Amino acid sequence: MIGRLNHVAIAVKALEPAAAVYRGALGASVSAPQPLPEHGVTVVFVELPNSKIELLEPLGEASPIADFVARNPKGAVHHICYEVDDILAARDRLRDNGARVLGGGDPKIGAHGKPVLFLHPNDFSGVLIELEQA
Amino acid sequence: MIGRLNHVAIAVKALEPAAAVYRGALGASVSAPQPLPEHGVTVVFVELPNSKIELLEPLGEASPIADFVARNPKGAVHHICYEVDDILAARDRLRDNGARVLGGGDPKIGAHGKPVLFLHPNDFSGVLIELEQA
Repeated sequence: MIGRLNHVAIAVKALEPAAAVYRGALGASVSAPQPLPEHGVTVVFVELPNSKIELLEPLGEASPIADFVARNPKGAVHHICYEVDDILAARDRLRDNGARVLGGGDPKIGAHGKPVLFLHPNDFSGVLIELEQA
Repeated sequence: MIGRLNHVAIAVKALEPAAAVYRGALGASVSAPQPLPEHGVTVVFVELPNSKIELLEPLGEASPIADFVARNPKGAVHHICYEVDDILAARDRLRDNGARVLGGGDPKIGAHGKPVLFLHPNDFSGVLIELEQA
């Protein structure tokens, strides 16, 4: 069912030093910061030949990653995103297998403008998973 | 400098239930467990079209991931591996940029039979990074 590894998201307190390390020490191509107020994050994309890393910084009062960053002040992997062809079929398959789909199971429009769902980390080796309809 | 995202490694207490979720609920292609006693882990590969996930379970008395799994009993992302063309040139660039290369900076032969280095998570947004000469 799952397809490509769309991205790995790393949440940090401050984007600029994190982006500078990827650009400088690691020599990667890094986009300009993009504020996404409706998602409560500012994002920078590290472009790799086969996938990407998203660096996320909390934005606004009610950022969904604020608590995570407070618990992980040095930064940490926040989630991994896999692509699926049909997000509703994916949701149903997950539920049939007893996995918890967050937020009531209705896909939302994610940071890339596509339908997404998040899956409970306790059901997936402690890792928060995003599914994105590609 | 960095090239492809070679893999994301997720460390777990027990491989079989973690692999079963990737195979079942997520419908991915998952390899048979492969013990790597010289690396102190047993590994399972989740094959994705553009990259892979490695599920790691501690193996033996002195597994290098034993403490990590004890601290993260539900599982967690252990490291992210990027490919590089020339691991010694990569090491020198990292040092020139003030980043810490672990283990004295001499590449070791990694789980895929290729030269690898690990980079200090505190210099990379809290994430342990493996570089593998592709």
